[in-house]
Order: sequence, then C-alpha cells, then structure tokens
Amino acid sequence: MFNNADMQLRSTQMTDQSPRGGVHERRRGALAASAEGRPETSDVDAFLVTSQVNVRYLTGFTGSNGALIVGAGDRPRSGDRIGTDGRYTGQVAAQAGDLEAVIDRATASALIAHATANGLRRIAVEGDDLTVSAFGRLRDAAESAGAELVPLDGCVARLRITKDADEVAAIAAACRIGDEALGALIDRGAIAPGRTERAVARDLEWEMFGLGADAIAFETIVAAGAHSAIPHHRPTDAVLTVGDLVKIDFGAVVDGYHSDMTRTVVLGEPSAWQREIHAVVERAQQAGRDALAVGADLRTIDAAARTVIADAGYGEYYVHGLGHGVGLEIHEAPGIGAAASGTLPDGATVTVEPGVYLPGRGGVRIEDTLVVAESGPRLLTTTPRTLRVL
Amino acid sequence: MFNNADMQLRSTQMTDQSPRGGVHERRRGALAASAEGRPETSDVDAFLVTSQVNVRYLTGFTGSNGALIVGAGDRPRSGDRIGTDGRYTGQVAAQAGDLEAVIDRATASALIAHATANGLRRIAVEGDDLTVSAFGRLRDAAESAGAELVPLDGCVARLRITKDADEVAAIAAACRIGDEALGALIDRGAIAPGRTERAVARDLEWEMFGLGADAIAFETIVAAGAHSAIPHHRPTDAVLTVGDLVKIDFGAVVDGYHSDMTRTVVLGEPSAWQREIHAVVERAQQAGRDALAVGADLRTIDAAARTVIADAGYGEYYVHGLGHGVGLEIHEAPGIGAAASGTLPDGATVTVEPGVYLPGRGGVRIEDTLVVAESGPRLLTTTPRTLRVL
Repeated sequence: MFNNADMQLRSTQMTDQSPRGGVHERRRGALAASAEGRPETSDVDAFLVTSQVNVRYLTGFTGSNGALIVGAGDRPRSGDRIGTDGRYTGQVAAQAGDLEAVIDRATASALIAHATANGLRRIAVEGDDLTVSAFGRLRDAAESAGAELVPLDGCVARLRITKDADEVAAIAAACRIGDEALGALIDRGAIAPGRTERAVARDLEWEMFGLGADAIAFETIVAAGAHSAIPHHRPTDAVLTVGDLVKIDFGAVVDGYHSDMTRTVVLGEPSAWQREIHAVVERAQQAGRDALAVGADLRTIDAAARTVIADAGYGEYYVHGLGHGVGLEIHEAPGIGAAASGTLPDGATVTVEPGVYLPGRGGVRIEDTLVVAESGPRLLTTTPRTLRVL
Repeated sequence: MFNNADMQLRSTQMTDQSPRGGVHERRRGALAASAEGRPETSDVDAFLVTSQVNVRYLTGFTGSNGALIVGAGDRPRSGDRIGTDGRYTGQVAAQAGDLEAVIDRATASALIAHATANGLRRIAVEGDDLTVSAFGRLRDAAESAGAELVPLDGCVARLRITKDADEVAAIAAACRIGDEALGALIDRGAIAPGRTERAVARDLEWEMFGLGADAIAFETIVAAGAHSAIPHHRPTDAVLTVGDLVKIDFGAVVDGYHSDMTRTVVLGEPSAWQREIHAVVERAQQAGRDALAVGADLRTIDAAARTVIADAGYGEYYVHGLGHGVGLEIHEAPGIGAAASGTLPDGATVTVEPGVYLPGRGGVRIEDTLVVAESGPRLLTTTPRTLRVL
C-alpha cells in the first residue's frame, strides 16, 4: 500500500454516502456559536479543524486528508471551506457538497490563505491534534499571511458529546451486532475449553463482520483464567480451561460509530470467589447505570459504582475509571472517573464498566453502552449481565 | 473497553516476550551517537522519546504507554531510563529488563525530572510525535526543573531505516504469510465472480490470521472492476464480475513488523487494454526493483519505473510515489518518489509499487516488499507477478 502523502496527481474516489448537508451545517453553526460562550475563544475569527474525525463530524467527509475552516460567531457560513487534495475531488463533492472545497496538497495552509484573504486574522487550531512540527509549519504560513494561530483543546470534542438520533441509531446498530455476535458464539459452543483466546477473538470478529460491521471497534480482548485479571489483555494462544473466567471486551463499527461491551463468562461450575466477584461487579455496574442521570456529576457517577466494590472489600482491585463516551471514536468525552470534572449531558452515549481483577487468579468486568436521556439511561447493549456458565 | 488514561492504580501485565537487551542497548547507543553527527543535535544533552513505536524499537517494550530518555553523545548508558505507569510494572521488567524503569502516571514529565536531576539540561523531544498541547505541558514541567526542550523530527526514524537480521526475518515471515494466504484463496476459488469485495477481503484476513499473523498490516484493499482504478479503495458489497480487474493490496504483522504486497488479477479472459496496462506496470515494477541499488538516489529509483509508464503513454494515470520503507510501521522512511531526497541505505526494507489507473475502467498495481543489499535487492514477497487469469 503506497503512502497517501505520496500521491502526486488527481484521481477520484467513489463514495456510497450521500450528502447530509443539514446536519453538518448545523454542527458547524454550533462550533461557530461556541466561540462566544468561552473566554479563550471569544476573540477568535475562525476555527481550523485538522483532526480527521472532527472533519468527518462537521462535514460528512471521510477521506484520509481533510481540513475545515469555520468562521466564528455570526460570520456567514458561506465563507466556510473544506480542504482536501486532488485524490478526493469527487468524494468531497459527493459527501460534503454543501461546502465549497479548496483542493490543494498543502491542505491546511491553503485554508489559512483562504481565511486571511477574507479578513480572518485570529485562527483557533486544534492543539490536541496538531504535532509541534505540523503546527510550526502552519504558523509560518499563517504569519506570512498576517494571521495568528491560537492552539485550543476540545472545541469540537465538546460538541460531539451529545448525539443526535442518527448517531444513536448507528451506535445502537453496532451494539446490536455485538450482542448478536456474542450470542451466536455462545450458542454454537465456540467459547469452550480447548480453544485458544486468539481463536475465540477471531471468531467473534468474523461473526461481527458477517452481521454487517464495517470494522471492529478495537482489538478484541479475550482473556482466560489468570489473564482475565489483566485489564487490557491481548489474546494469546493460551488455551481456555475448565474453571476459567473468560473476559470478553469487544465492539463493532457501523457508519463510523462504535459499540463497546464486556461480558465475563465462566467455563464449568464457578467457584465461590468467582461467583462473589462477579456478583460484586454486577451490583456495582447496576449502581453505575442507575446513576446516569442527566446533569449528574461525573465523579458522583463513578463513586456510585466504586463504593459498591470498595464496600465489598475489593476497592484495591478496581484500577480504572467507570466509563467513557463512545461515538466516532471508541474513547471520547465525557470520561467518567474519580478524577473527572463536569456533569453528564443529555444525549451522551457512555459506557459503564467496573471490574475487579485479582492478580494471578482472574478478573471480572461487565460493560454496557448506554444513551443518557431525561427519562433515564437506555441500554444499547442487551446481552444479559448475569454470570453465564458455559 | 475502558480508556487506558483512566487507569488509577497498579496492576501487572503478563508478557510472552523475553528481553533482548543487547540489540536494544545497541540501538540506544546509536541514537546517542547520532547527536554529534548533526548540527541541530550537537548540543543536546539527551533525547526524550515519546512515540510508542520508537520506544518499542529502542527498548522492546510494547505497552500502550511508554517513554524513554537517552543521554546524548558518550554519556553512560546507565543513566538511561524507560518510563511507564503502574499497569506495566511487570511487563516493562520482562521486556526491557536491561533498563531501569521510572513508574509514574506522568510518564514523560517524570523522565524529564530524572534527567534534570542528573544535570541534563537541553533535551531533544519528538516534534513529529508530540501534540502542541502535550508539548506545552512538558515544556512547563521542564522549565520549572530548569531544562529546555528542543523539538526535532526523525531522530529515531532515521535509525530504523536499516534493518538487522531479526527485523528482516520478521518482515520476511509476514511476507510469507501474505504469499501463502493469497495463494490459498486463489487455489480454493475464493476470488471469483459473484463474491463481494468485502467477502474476499475478510477471507484474506482470516487466512492470514490462520497462518499466524498477529494482526493485519492495514485495512485490506480489494477493488474490482472500475473500483480498481481507485488507488486506495475500501472494499464494498460490490460483486466481482467476469471481465473485472481485481486489485488486492494487503499485508500481515509478525512480531510488530509489517508486510505489504499488491497483485492484480483478472476474472476471465483479459481484454487488450487490461493486458496492456498490466504488462506496462509489470515492466515498470521490474525496472523499479532493478534500480534498488545501495546508495542509489531515491528520485532516480522512482524515475526508473515512472519512465517506463510515461513512455508507454500512461504517465498521467500513475498518481503516486513508487514505494516506501516497511517495518514496525507500514509506512516509514525512506519514501521513494519524485519529490524524495537522499539515497537508499544498505539493509532498508522497501516496497516497489507502480500502478496505472484508468478512471471508470480499471487499474493495475503490482507491489513487492524487498530488502536492499550490496548483492542486490532480495524479494520477500514471492507471488508471481504475471497477470493471473481466474
């Protein structure tokens, strides 16, 4: 596979996605309007977006090289431009036809030139996306055009927290694929003594593709026996054995949106300690889900689950946060943890995934993806959470 | 899957990789020695490495959070440190046991503190890895410790170009998996009219996993008919049809090292234009491979293949560079293209992959991975390059 950066001339890219101008223009409007709400952006003239996932969110464009300039405040949206290179001339017209495109290999610099030609001088850039080197090159281009770049973090990530109906539908579809895939594996006895972690992981991924996943959400975790005590274990050729806890953490991607679910099963009759830690995690996870109220403090949500585990005496064996936002990225805002700040917005899609990990013995994690609503959180992953004996 | 950044306490990670101190210490020595060879690094006291792939290259550590500080010039290697967080205490000892580890959630800052405590004041950082925001945080930490950070590009990438025997062996193993997987698909008639691009891609990936791939090297490209004219086409549900060119670009990962190969087959008897463009690309690819001499100018290598295509009248349909380095990353130095600079080093592993893409009709690319040597380039991908009629 050649390096995209080495493309020299124009080519076209077909697309199977139709423009959805309305929703993307509305999102760009929200970004523009956000400038006035925050002191650090109140005097910027425009936002330059360089993160590919943020460009996709704001335009629908899915090519590997895109950037976007959005005028801040009430500047007319007609001045906004998407930038890409000649490979994507056809694709950008098909996916982001409501935006004029600037076709130039020096994509971001060309957008800065467009902005300065229109009198925009103070341009916010994504400090959490641009490398120091890329920023240095852009800053030089901006300075020679009389503009100033202001690195800021999270301007688009904040907007992405609250999902619209189409986004929730895509995440729900990805969750459904996960539920069905795991169910199919269990039904046909594919999670059984004698098989390897790796084989089970591959089967699960294969099943998700067969059910229509565009991609897997992240490298599938299948962790058996003592490995289940490793929070993020990468599947090995270790063989599943009677008596093992088997922790399975996986997801699918549909239309760019991710799902995320964990279940821990046991092979053969569970021992007392296995039953106990599973029951503790099940209660903690329920408490975490129950705490997902619109406007709830993120630390309070984390504490709701953490307290259950601590009270049962396993606090030191629960070593990570309670959950995270899920959407165009597998991990996005808001993070729900002991060090989080802020509250839970309406329409956020988040995971709830406490765990207890006993080093050298085994661990349990139970994780769901949910969408937050005034009427209460709605489960998008529906595989039963009770300890499944296989 | 919870966010790694949200890990709060210590846990341990098992590993199946043993330390190979010798090779990694030698690499760190080469990085240290490189400081004196270049004006921009001649006065730095240390290198702070934050790119995960570079940390792996220099230490063997494969965790998701690692950093490394290496004293520049002839400073004693005993002052070098690897940094990670408490999740990886066990893994870092197992994989990088020849280095003392600094275990701290603020991994890079902790290494800067270690360096300044040892009198190192001018610290080179990876400007092509750190984001503006991450650099800003580190710079603040450095300044309060009396140190200065110097962003530089490519200090480790340059070292990685020349592969040692173990690295070549891993790439060769990945290439062999690719060869065998494609051969198996062809043998059992899996690339045939009526199947979808997506199904063929999934079969190929499945086959590679079955043959021992740790991962696929990148999203497999299967592009049939008019899609084959799209250089980087993502597989769709489009059905393969008699008369189609089918372009297949794929690779495997073994022990972190990638393979990369493209073949273009035809379904049923090829038409005259299909035969012609395949023959042109085949000749161009041979010319490119023949030009892979140690010390050859990278642009001259590119031109060797490009001239063949241009002379045949298809110059405008060859829209990308000739090739790229392959190793721990699918695309690494050196890039071989019309805008490249420099020469080809002994021991580089590179691709040679010219193509001709006729929009709306079809395209052909032929790609191999080779290792460069004084005795001439050695092919690591060995599937025949002649037009295969299926």
